[in-house]
Amino acid sequence: MLNFEFFNPTRIVFGQGTIARLDTLVASDARVLILLGGESARKNGTLAEVRAALGAREVYEFDGIEPNPSYETLMKAVSLVREKKLDFLLAVGGGSVIDGTKFVAAAIDYDGEPWDILETRGDTVTSALPFGSVLTLPATGSEMNDGSVVTRRATQAKLAFTSPHVFPRFSILDPTKTYTLPIRQIANGVVDSFTHVMEQYLTYPADGLVQDRFAEGLLQTLIEIGPKLLEKADDYELRANFMWVATLALNGLIGADVPQDWSTHIIGHELTARYNIDHARTLAVVLPANLQVRRAAKHGKLLQYAQRVWGITQGSEDERIDAAIDRTRAFFESMGIQTRLPDYGIDASEIGTLVGQLRAHGMVELGERKDVTPEVGQRILEASL
Amino acid sequence: MLNFEFFNPTRIVFGQGTIARLDTLVASDARVLILLGGESARKNGTLAEVRAALGAREVYEFDGIEPNPSYETLMKAVSLVREKKLDFLLAVGGGSVIDGTKFVAAAIDYDGEPWDILETRGDTVTSALPFGSVLTLPATGSEMNDGSVVTRRATQAKLAFTSPHVFPRFSILDPTKTYTLPIRQIANGVVDSFTHVMEQYLTYPADGLVQDRFAEGLLQTLIEIGPKLLEKADDYELRANFMWVATLALNGLIGADVPQDWSTHIIGHELTARYNIDHARTLAVVLPANLQVRRAAKHGKLLQYAQRVWGITQGSEDERIDAAIDRTRAFFESMGIQTRLPDYGIDASEIGTLVGQLRAHGMVELGERKDVTPEVGQRILEASL
Repeated sequence: MLNFEFFNPTRIVFGQGTIARLDTLVASDARVLILLGGESARKNGTLAEVRAALGAREVYEFDGIEPNPSYETLMKAVSLVREKKLDFLLAVGGGSVIDGTKFVAAAIDYDGEPWDILETRGDTVTSALPFGSVLTLPATGSEMNDGSVVTRRATQAKLAFTSPHVFPRFSILDPTKTYTLPIRQIANGVVDSFTHVMEQYLTYPADGLVQDRFAEGLLQTLIEIGPKLLEKADDYELRANFMWVATLALNGLIGADVPQDWSTHIIGHELTARYNIDHARTLAVVLPANLQVRRAAKHGKLLQYAQRVWGITQGSEDERIDAAIDRTRAFFESMGIQTRLPDYGIDASEIGTLVGQLRAHGMVELGERKDVTPEVGQRILEASL
Repeated sequence: MLNFEFFNPTRIVFGQGTIARLDTLVASDARVLILLGGESARKNGTLAEVRAALGAREVYEFDGIEPNPSYETLMKAVSLVREKKLDFLLAVGGGSVIDGTKFVAAAIDYDGEPWDILETRGDTVTSALPFGSVLTLPATGSEMNDGSVVTRRATQAKLAFTSPHVFPRFSILDPTKTYTLPIRQIANGVVDSFTHVMEQYLTYPADGLVQDRFAEGLLQTLIEIGPKLLEKADDYELRANFMWVATLALNGLIGADVPQDWSTHIIGHELTARYNIDHARTLAVVLPANLQVRRAAKHGKLLQYAQRVWGITQGSEDERIDAAIDRTRAFFESMGIQTRLPDYGIDASEIGTLVGQLRAHGMVELGERKDVTPEVGQRILEASL
């Protein structure tokens, strides 16, 4: 086991009807800015429920945080907070709204140009406005971690920052708020959560016995509930379990003392940047190919994954690994998500450009052993054809 | 899934050499009281390492917190803190020292007679002195939760309290600090952790899919490493995994949204109170008998436990349940811990007295369904013969 620190002070308030708890979670004299993404929270009544719970507090709203939240949009929220002298932020939405709120919180009192927060990966953040979240879309885990990804439209730079100052004070997880989500977003959320776990689990054995068991438990649960989630929107138990799995998949716990990969995410980011493919769909394309290309370096963990997660015990080691990768791909396909580049209209002629993007963005030493060079990235993309 | 809140702000600092981190974890102008149990931390160098890390800070020591920490002893520490105007507490030891430190922290500014903290189960605690811990004995989980058990010697009352004010600010978990522990304490710690998980897991199915998987992962890890822990004191990986499992077994996570039992603990407490048997050993006696007597009410979970934790898939349902209970008992015995009352010199003639104790202490509605009456307790004790 590696040395580690684990610290996560976010309060999770989970269950049906918990939005009413806002009245005790937010100070009675708080001056609140509610941050929103699209129109859904306004249309489906969630925003009305939030406003009712906040009662007589002075509340402003900020609409229009994009799926990949932009610096340009978020800086408008920063101005509004400063102008109205607001002192508490409340994100109502999914991972993008929460990520955006984290940036706004850190930018308010930032000494300098706030984009530096991203350039320094959060190291220069020394304080942040307190904020909470009401989660409506399980997927990214942002509701219980200290990470955020922001895009600067002017330069197309998409950067991440982390800071212990941007843990949400609380996150309200009411599974009934997911009932109105499009099926496409549920499917994406399952694949996103699954891949979050895999990036922290499927590396090389590092004696993190509990982390492995917990990761396997999250994967098994996603496999168990994934396809069922697509069948029925208002099954409370299924939605509740999905919501909690997605949070635990990226709250620091299963990654606490183990090597981590994240090359699937970074290669996937280039696909989103160039073709605007949903983030989760890029992961479904890259992950099976990534496991196939790097099967030698991931040999031990792939065998463990085959046995413990998929129950594969028959055949040679190579056959078991092939079977586990095939099952992973089939699972994504069972969620209605295609897993090959040509499914998205991308053929071999594009790969050179994508590899060039990886190089241009400095993504030349990826993975748990820093050995995923652009050449390896090229082989992964070729295996995705 | 039940509605729940999960909040745990304790910072875990884990790994070899981490005691040196005290210098950044404790304010440089803090006036510190170190609280200690027996002589071991003084003898094996841990105290010296702690004092070196604290450098020039003003530091006092308080020795002699007992294995079941007493109100009488702890109130002396309260006096010392008040007299010397100390502002930070540091527990160096196992669960009893940390439990005791929590009481001292809550008592310092308590408005009234501090024993009321226990009488009110912590509800009346509105603040506490900040404190951290250096854990030397993995077992109770106190290093990452907000619970404490204190005994008043004068009346032999043993009461528990919880309060969000008594989460440790940080806990340092250095696995090498367990190398000098007597084997008996390691064995006790494994059985204690195992039973903590079982009290939260082996009740009735409640659709907490992840909580079940996590609980099973902790049990599987304890089964995997338990006997090996007894063989070699300085195996870092084994000790590290044990230390982290024991913490996760009772930090609120696996119990967040599920029914809980705890009748094994309460019946066990009576055995400790009357015969001074180690806490963990009482659990090893009571748990297998408890599962046997209440097998109908726990039917679904016992089958799941048999299959997922022990890999038992052959035989009738009753046979599989019998096999799982037998394996549980055999696991405790493999840790060198006996599992029958006569092994501790207790025969059937004592059972009436023990059941009388349960009644006298108001322990008449135990278990996840409040149906473990003293009559059921009697059958459990009879099944322990």
